[in-house]
Amino acid sequence: MIFKIFINYSKKNTFAIDAIKEYEKRLSRYCKIKCTWVKNGGKLPKTISTHSMLFQITKTGEHLTSEDLADKINALGIHGYPNLTFLIGFDEILGCEKICLSNMNMDPSLETVILYEQVYRAYRILNNEPYHK
Amino acid sequence: MIFKIFINYSKKNTFAIDAIKEYEKRLSRYCKIKCTWVKNGGKLPKTISTHSMLFQITKTGEHLTSEDLADKINALGIHGYPNLTFLIGFDEILGCEKICLSNMNMDPSLETVILYEQVYRAYRILNNEPYHK
Repeated sequence: MIFKIFINYSKKNTFAIDAIKEYEKRLSRYCKIKCTWVKNGGKLPKTISTHSMLFQITKTGEHLTSEDLADKINALGIHGYPNLTFLIGFDEILGCEKICLSNMNMDPSLETVILYEQVYRAYRILNNEPYHK
Repeated sequence: MIFKIFINYSKKNTFAIDAIKEYEKRLSRYCKIKCTWVKNGGKLPKTISTHSMLFQITKTGEHLTSEDLADKINALGIHGYPNLTFLIGFDEILGCEKICLSNMNMDPSLETVILYEQVYRAYRILNNEPYHK
């Protein structure tokens, strides 16, 4: 699977960059994952592949469990949708699936760390591996 | 207000320690906040003050918004409860208020970063200050 994450944010937190690096290292055996920080005032980046399944992290989305997300990633892989794009910190976008991480408002860089942790957790669940802390 | 956070966890993530340091610095003008990492297999630490209001971060808790948490902190301060203790990563404990951060399972160190971010956000909300990214 190939995960592309676009984060609409003006400032990168150092701790978030470190966390992302750590999870990218851990995830390298399971998938390709990359994040791009964009500054465009909330508009959708133009570089998103039209062949990618689009998800938006937003308060109005579905409250998934970790197992739900793992099942979703698995089902998309099985059904021939290996390219997943996640948008974080953007204005509401029509025509993409919406996922809510929490009822709380959060810094987009922190939401990105949570998403990385959940993708890593998803692969551990799908592979019946204990969660490596 | 005085916040004490106890985290039941065997391994500290470097990025979480850095994030906590950053939020402690930002929060120093609003409150006292300190976290303690404990290794005791899920049992409640014995050092918790009996004068403190006790909260547990757990999946079975209430899904608060950031504004709800801000209101709660404000109300406790007004009503003479300045000591708040939060427990993260412990087995279910009777007799304390339960708060859920997300439907997803998360690493306790990541939950701690979220809690710090929410306490910081709460003070920004209560002081009508823009959220400093």
